Amino acid sequence: MKVISVVGTKKSGKTTLVEAMVRALRGRGRVGTIKNMPGHPVEDRGDTRRHFEAGADVVVGVGSERILFKVSRGGGLEEALEELRASGVEFAIVEGFKTSGLPKIVLGGIEVDNLLRRVDASPPFDEGLIEELIGLLILQPES
Amino acid sequence: MKVISVVGTKKSGKTTLVEAMVRALRGRGRVGTIKNMPGHPVEDRGDTRRHFEAGADVVVGVGSERILFKVSRGGGLEEALEELRASGVEFAIVEGFKTSGLPKIVLGGIEVDNLLRRVDASPPFDEGLIEELIGLLILQPES
Repeated sequence: MKVISVVGTKKSGKTTLVEAMVRALRGRGRVGTIKNMPGHPVEDRGDTRRHFEAGADVVVGVGSERILFKVSRGGGLEEALEELRASGVEFAIVEGFKTSGLPKIVLGGIEVDNLLRRVDASPPFDEGLIEELIGLLILQPES
Repeated sequence: MKVISVVGTKKSGKTTLVEAMVRALRGRGRVGTIKNMPGHPVEDRGDTRRHFEAGADVVVGVGSERILFKVSRGGGLEEALEELRASGVEFAIVEGFKTSGLPKIVLGGIEVDNLLRRVDASPPFDEGLIEELIGLLILQPES
């Protein structure tokens, strides 16, 4: 699995950039994304929260259009990457996690380890830039 | 993995029964649950929906307290059970899916295949009943 991370300050356009990269990867292989949800509670529509709070280690919801929702305990970034690998994902884009050791595309001025490319543009991002960033992802070693 | 399903009409207390069974299973092994979420859209707090709608096959969120959220495409009940098996779950309780081939605990008067035990009580369920139902789960063959 080839992995790249998009980091930047708040409101710098990270999600918009991730969306554009995911869209550009369609048809080139299975794509997965990871995002940080600090403070995010288990969603409370349906009964996921009730099952989870009763003590289930894993709760899986079967939604319409064959969408699966899974909530599980005991995970950080490494476990999230493992979930993507187990799902047969070929390209993974991680939004956030500035302090990870992953290779990074950086929006704006923050300093990070493993900088691959700094992007000074704001959304909407142009297609040439997106293609260049996809190229950087494709060049990553399998991990 | 030992699997049992709890089915019944709306408002018959299915979720309350599942909660009580999950709680009673604590300390006896890893527990997973599955629930039906017909019409459930991808939750729209955070950016899960944006990643997913851009075309990601799998989106994983890393929440606080090491909770992982995963949304993926291409799943029904069988795939949900497979998710639980892959997570090392020993006991699985499925809420709903009356027409499945799973062994069933039924709340109320509906007719189903593979009926193990019909429960005529309403919540709160007594402890002796819950222990009896857990006993039925434990007697299920590994599947």
